[in-house]
Amino acid sequence: MAAEQSATKLTHAEKCIRDLVQTFYDCSRKDADQENLSLGEFTELVKKNFPHYLEGVNMEDKIKELDTNNDKQMKFSEYWKLIGELAKNAKRCEKAKHQC
Amino acid sequence: MAAEQSATKLTHAEKCIRDLVQTFYDCSRKDADQENLSLGEFTELVKKNFPHYLEGVNMEDKIKELDTNNDKQMKFSEYWKLIGELAKNAKRCEKAKHQC
Repeated sequence: MAAEQSATKLTHAEKCIRDLVQTFYDCSRKDADQENLSLGEFTELVKKNFPHYLEGVNMEDKIKELDTNNDKQMKFSEYWKLIGELAKNAKRCEKAKHQC
Repeated sequence: MAAEQSATKLTHAEKCIRDLVQTFYDCSRKDADQENLSLGEFTELVKKNFPHYLEGVNMEDKIKELDTNNDKQMKFSEYWKLIGELAKNAKRCEKAKHQC
């Protein structure tokens, strides 16, 4: 990837990726461990950023599912697993919408 | 996920995911096989949407790497592997920027 893209030049799709990364850091940088989300930070991130895409989802179950190394915190790869799951759901909706 | 979120209600993070899914469909729906990207569609998608994040990357190598089942087309999961890779790169840049 080119050294440092000036933010203004990025395409919309690139900004979408950058902003999803920023969403992780906006919440993970609230405590000393800036590279991981505490479970509290993760729960807050979800409520604030994915209220519709994760409507009705039990957070305890979701955390158990995502916190694969069971260290009671979420590293970026575990966060991104959630993003991938939400993208798959959004894709299913888009496909169904297009076929009606 | 709630049945159908009216697009206007979605948060910015949800719109980022929706738009990255839409980026796939904007290119995959150009031919009869709307659920897969031909290699031509994939190359066009990358040039148009990720010119900075994939600057200088050899497309033939990238396609070989992503087209894991070697069927000469890209299904959504193979496209999303690329998105995940770009997110990891963007995360590295964000982390480095924050530590300077």
